[in-house]
Amino acid sequence: MAETNRYWRLDAYPQGTDFPSAVRLAEEPLPEPGDREVRVRNLWLSLDAGTRMWMTPREDSYMPPTPLGSKVIGFVLGRVEASRHPGFREGDLVRAYGQWADHSLLRPDLGDVWTLDPIADMRQHFAVLGPNGWTAYVGLAEYGGVRPGETVLVSAAAGATGLLAAQFARMMGCRVIGIAGGAAKCALLTGRYALDAAIDYKGEDVAARLRALAPAGIGCYFDCVGGPMLDAVLPNMAMNGRVAICGLIATYDKAERSGPAAFDLVLMKRLTIAGFFSPDFYFRGEEINRLTRPWLEAGRVGMEFDVTNGLENALHAYGKLFSGGNVGKTMVRLAD
Amino acid sequence: MAETNRYWRLDAYPQGTDFPSAVRLAEEPLPEPGDREVRVRNLWLSLDAGTRMWMTPREDSYMPPTPLGSKVIGFVLGRVEASRHPGFREGDLVRAYGQWADHSLLRPDLGDVWTLDPIADMRQHFAVLGPNGWTAYVGLAEYGGVRPGETVLVSAAAGATGLLAAQFARMMGCRVIGIAGGAAKCALLTGRYALDAAIDYKGEDVAARLRALAPAGIGCYFDCVGGPMLDAVLPNMAMNGRVAICGLIATYDKAERSGPAAFDLVLMKRLTIAGFFSPDFYFRGEEINRLTRPWLEAGRVGMEFDVTNGLENALHAYGKLFSGGNVGKTMVRLAD
Repeated sequence: MAETNRYWRLDAYPQGTDFPSAVRLAEEPLPEPGDREVRVRNLWLSLDAGTRMWMTPREDSYMPPTPLGSKVIGFVLGRVEASRHPGFREGDLVRAYGQWADHSLLRPDLGDVWTLDPIADMRQHFAVLGPNGWTAYVGLAEYGGVRPGETVLVSAAAGATGLLAAQFARMMGCRVIGIAGGAAKCALLTGRYALDAAIDYKGEDVAARLRALAPAGIGCYFDCVGGPMLDAVLPNMAMNGRVAICGLIATYDKAERSGPAAFDLVLMKRLTIAGFFSPDFYFRGEEINRLTRPWLEAGRVGMEFDVTNGLENALHAYGKLFSGGNVGKTMVRLAD
Repeated sequence: MAETNRYWRLDAYPQGTDFPSAVRLAEEPLPEPGDREVRVRNLWLSLDAGTRMWMTPREDSYMPPTPLGSKVIGFVLGRVEASRHPGFREGDLVRAYGQWADHSLLRPDLGDVWTLDPIADMRQHFAVLGPNGWTAYVGLAEYGGVRPGETVLVSAAAGATGLLAAQFARMMGCRVIGIAGGAAKCALLTGRYALDAAIDYKGEDVAARLRALAPAGIGCYFDCVGGPMLDAVLPNMAMNGRVAICGLIATYDKAERSGPAAFDLVLMKRLTIAGFFSPDFYFRGEEINRLTRPWLEAGRVGMEFDVTNGLENALHAYGKLFSGGNVGKTMVRLAD
């Protein structure tokens, strides 16, 4: 067991959400780190919908597609077990772009390996204090330009980034409406997470509910979804509203591309639609954490964790991200 | 003649560009100004594609539709002939939102009547020094965020606003590509107006030409057109590029609404798409003119004027805006 490394291999670019036909669990001898490389024992795997784009052979995507035959890339939290990089020692706890595997081989010089402080719940390094939190904070503050008193709408509000965006918007003094699938998620949002309102897109008419809930219009829409929901939202934006596009999960697995039919409202309502890509500002993570960590420590923001045990179950858990089956941060526990 | 006022009346909301079936020349007794009103003898009428929206019964437009039976609204340049407003005297030269008519009745307290300096070519009050100029300047500098050295693309570059945006971008130190219909317009752009390149969308493949002309991508697209051209442009935007949407003339007369198929590039390329509505910043006109007037006086920026004589020919001239038949600023001369 110690001599081998199980990993998920991309054998084909998946059609839609048919991941099982395209991604398979494979095994290799335990890789040895080369010069300035580090090997990590993965403890937790973070599952993120954005990584779907690495499985799409589109040259104009925000990230080039992963070559077929390679290991699936993903965020991991792990402990250094072998280091040939002077900045890392055995036993260091790190967050990194690694591989869906028992062990990750990392090149810290690429800039995506972070040494972590021990905190009460290490998983928060992938929630409030991690990439989802940075995405939520910068998306709201800089791309969404939110101001206290505004109404902020968040899609996929029961997902990891959306749940943080909704809570951060509340901390920024905004009135917050979340969109999620199902009554249970909506009850969680308005209950434990104290959102002002939640809309169940599976059971309610989103456009009609928005008209009733935000008659003066939505100042900022923090969008993780894109697709048809944007057409329900655009007519309900306030004049000079901002749409901060963090993800387009509704479109990642679609062959046919399309834009919102109500696109002309960008002009009619003087809207700004801004797409952003959070790895662009990962280098600012520690700066952002100084702003959000007090909220976490005071118990004013939090996260739901949707935990699956075992690397062999990672693909099943990943599929849930695209069917709305997850709540909060979806993680796979690999080892203790 | 002195006792009557001819005007264009909106009898129906036009289908497509069938203006003759919807708008008719009518006559009324010369209107007398009420308290705090002013009557102006119109000398020049400015024809602007954006006013098409006033003829569309859409409640979510940037301006509410004109009620049927009213006079067609438009920008006029005229001389005050009767004033019951203390700020205006007989003989004053003004620019105003007036009516397509021999005479306009104005309410200066609404904020859209401007007293004008006499200049060599009064028509420049509707070009470099008027609303088209303000739209071009603010659109580029504030919504387009242009920086020296960038490549700026302008659609409808032989139209009034586009021609000013292209020239102002050049003055701001940018490399400028214009899109226009026909070889003659393109020759004008790269000749007299010194653009770096021009693309004839009627005879050339816009996407292919952009790939060749701007291999590093377009920093700012100043768009007056919208529609399918946006799908040719989006794949050629640079990372973090800005699309400043000044108008969507391709869509004003369409019943079916649609957005760009390549909308997901907003995320992939971290683009910002910002719609803006120039009346929002007309109050800053004099401030903007202080920046652009030296360029005009030095002969470094200019305008083509497409002049039609006689109020009775206004509707024919207006139709040319939607068929690409005009070059530069389209105006109707009503009196000397």
